[in-house]
Amino acid sequence: MQAIEPAIDPALEAQLEASRDQRLESYFELLRIPSISALPEHAADCRRTAEWIAAEASRIGFENVEVTPGVPRPIVYADWLHAPGAPTVIVYCHYDVQPVDPIDLWDTAPFEPFVRDGRVIGRGSADDKGQLHLHLRAAEAFFSTRGRLPLNLKLVFEGEEESSSVFIKDWLPANRERLKADAVVISDTSFFEGNRPALTVGLRGMVYVQIDVTGPALDLHSGGYGGLVENPGNALARIIAELKDRDGVVQIPGFYDDVVPVTPEQHAELEAMPFDDNEILRITGASRLVGEKGYTPLERTGYRPTLDVNGMWGGFTGEGSKTIIPGHAHAKVSCRLVPNQDPGRIFEALRDYVRQVAPPGVSVEVRDLGHGKPLVVGTDDFVAQAALEALEATFGVKPFTQRGGGSIPVAEMFETVLGHAPVMLGFTNADSNAHAPNESMVLSNYETGIRTICRLWENLGGRTA
Amino acid sequence: MQAIEPAIDPALEAQLEASRDQRLESYFELLRIPSISALPEHAADCRRTAEWIAAEASRIGFENVEVTPGVPRPIVYADWLHAPGAPTVIVYCHYDVQPVDPIDLWDTAPFEPFVRDGRVIGRGSADDKGQLHLHLRAAEAFFSTRGRLPLNLKLVFEGEEESSSVFIKDWLPANRERLKADAVVISDTSFFEGNRPALTVGLRGMVYVQIDVTGPALDLHSGGYGGLVENPGNALARIIAELKDRDGVVQIPGFYDDVVPVTPEQHAELEAMPFDDNEILRITGASRLVGEKGYTPLERTGYRPTLDVNGMWGGFTGEGSKTIIPGHAHAKVSCRLVPNQDPGRIFEALRDYVRQVAPPGVSVEVRDLGHGKPLVVGTDDFVAQAALEALEATFGVKPFTQRGGGSIPVAEMFETVLGHAPVMLGFTNADSNAHAPNESMVLSNYETGIRTICRLWENLGGRTA
Repeated sequence: MQAIEPAIDPALEAQLEASRDQRLESYFELLRIPSISALPEHAADCRRTAEWIAAEASRIGFENVEVTPGVPRPIVYADWLHAPGAPTVIVYCHYDVQPVDPIDLWDTAPFEPFVRDGRVIGRGSADDKGQLHLHLRAAEAFFSTRGRLPLNLKLVFEGEEESSSVFIKDWLPANRERLKADAVVISDTSFFEGNRPALTVGLRGMVYVQIDVTGPALDLHSGGYGGLVENPGNALARIIAELKDRDGVVQIPGFYDDVVPVTPEQHAELEAMPFDDNEILRITGASRLVGEKGYTPLERTGYRPTLDVNGMWGGFTGEGSKTIIPGHAHAKVSCRLVPNQDPGRIFEALRDYVRQVAPPGVSVEVRDLGHGKPLVVGTDDFVAQAALEALEATFGVKPFTQRGGGSIPVAEMFETVLGHAPVMLGFTNADSNAHAPNESMVLSNYETGIRTICRLWENLGGRTA
Repeated sequence: MQAIEPAIDPALEAQLEASRDQRLESYFELLRIPSISALPEHAADCRRTAEWIAAEASRIGFENVEVTPGVPRPIVYADWLHAPGAPTVIVYCHYDVQPVDPIDLWDTAPFEPFVRDGRVIGRGSADDKGQLHLHLRAAEAFFSTRGRLPLNLKLVFEGEEESSSVFIKDWLPANRERLKADAVVISDTSFFEGNRPALTVGLRGMVYVQIDVTGPALDLHSGGYGGLVENPGNALARIIAELKDRDGVVQIPGFYDDVVPVTPEQHAELEAMPFDDNEILRITGASRLVGEKGYTPLERTGYRPTLDVNGMWGGFTGEGSKTIIPGHAHAKVSCRLVPNQDPGRIFEALRDYVRQVAPPGVSVEVRDLGHGKPLVVGTDDFVAQAALEALEATFGVKPFTQRGGGSIPVAEMFETVLGHAPVMLGFTNADSNAHAPNESMVLSNYETGIRTICRLWENLGGRTA
């Protein structure tokens, strides 16, 4: 896919063209700060990133810039509200990134970004610092050419999206007045496979738990005690195995009760999309596609809930052969949820089921590490319509609408607190390796995406709020 | 249990009594070297330990002392062969120790031994440096009082018993001539629960494997790909769960085919032993005893094979909630084997079964990390008889005979190479925490054990070879 001549004000285009190198350097600067929210030792890096963004927002022309005081991974808030009569839009991105392990699978240092084969490589290049940066640069184009934006913007940049969005849960309702707006735009999603422009009109919800299985008080010699006590490693494996059957069907009682079935119309629409199994196999390196029996791959990621082990550990994991019965074993397990599953009810059902299938002789705890509701946006929404138009005008192809398999807990919070289902306008390539080694952002997506934003703001600014 | 007045030559007893403090200091010196054979970074410590032992053996009076050149964890060989007409006995112990993780569960530093409540605390205090040291000190008592031993001894002290005894597999047959002997005594076992003196007349064999499950080439975002690819963590859990049913019965086809059934006589004998469930629960901290249905605890550890996860790992194991599908997941799994199971056949059956039950979409490798045959010693063996007599005379109670649940791969090798089933005369308390944090040796077992050895050598020395 080629980016065509951007369909934006030539003055904006000239500014963007002239600032290309400087923009890339600024993008790299942002990526170099290791703002890993899941690891407490990176709290200072998260704050440093927030301060970097706040300083940039101020410099560009935003006002009321605030880095939440007194929290380890603050929210950056900024606004510009001098377009009376025009709509007010909240832009949400996040500046925190995933951990980098397994570090040995990175070709290069995760926080030393560079361009290779038309992509920016580095942790956060796509998810989500790249997209955040693109919004700063689009706004800068307006401020530096016109001294103003065509509409009212409120920036909300979070610092713990990758670690369950805990703080913003309280921050959003506490700032309800300040956050009044006509729409919310979230840029934290990707294009369709094959790098085809797409607007995301649905997200899966999530329940993320940790299962802790405890047996003997100490690791035991597996010779002396093998055959006497339950082994927490075997017990954990049994629990996880019982969560799904061999057809990929989740076995938790009630799990599917509230799932809205795929309609024949939706099924037909998905069938018409150019989904290519081989493209997924290429991106993932998996040997075949596997999932819940009876559903197509796009149904399985967009319309069906899933359950995955995210991590597991217990006992001896070094070189060689230590002969122990581990004292305890653990797993992180998450479910992606779809309308109308309720995360609270699913957590309880999961917890109760785990307790029920746990073998005797061990104790089991299931902890809720965070959850969010699934979300669907109507494509008749005026911002969704304008976004589709801007994508088509700037990328030169008719964009798809897609339901994302991922979860953005904050999307549901915005909907609950502000009453608007956010529009999810994301620009990363589908093979970005978000959450994995060698994360990348196709540079032309980033560049053209800035033009898409410019055109979207221009279009929305022409409307009456 | 009280150690009674030792039934040995008063001159030996006087030497032992006079050297008590110095002996404890020497024991500590040996324990302070962190000879962890499973961790390559401790190879130098293993060699240092071997050299320490070799120097001690020389100093005491042994001859032909040799530390195998050119191997990271050498064997220490030494002998004294000047008792013509008397039997020649090989003594086997090992100087390597288990890793110390989980280090945070140790009350004190593992390699800084000390005495608390009548026990020597520290890694290797029981398994097996303590027992090795006891043999050096028994021999020293003879050498320093008489200038000679009552029989011919050949010491074989290994440095990688805790990591599959790889080198000695070749060393034993290569040294067949030098190792000619009338009997082999292995001191690497423990007393019965409640610290009741016992001679071990059977050991379980072992097969130790690593199962490697590989799925996508990278960790994947569990939102975008959950529902599309098989998850190696879920797949590993399914594989492990399929290895045993809920009754603790191993499901590998043919696994029990060669198991010799427990006879009614053996069942009755085991029923008569003072086995106390509560004592095991106290030692292990487990909430209940669990094992193969239809067998008593002593049958399950002595006469029945078992299967245990020794460790498992994969994906994100840090704090918080990283939402990935891990690219791979791993487990270490071992089986304890009983007569007449063949380790090679069991490995193949296990490997084939794992491949069979592995779900599609992942690849699975099963690697053999070491195995050994089960072993049974007849109690009519002249060394076993003499050992039982020496235990009773020195500890003052009639010892039990027991089948140990553990495995000493080298025991089977001695049997194969030399044609003698070794006699397993071990002295550690059953609650020694071998392989676990806070390993300990009851000091009176160590002290009385030295007298037992002295009496055993004296008795055997009176026989004609």
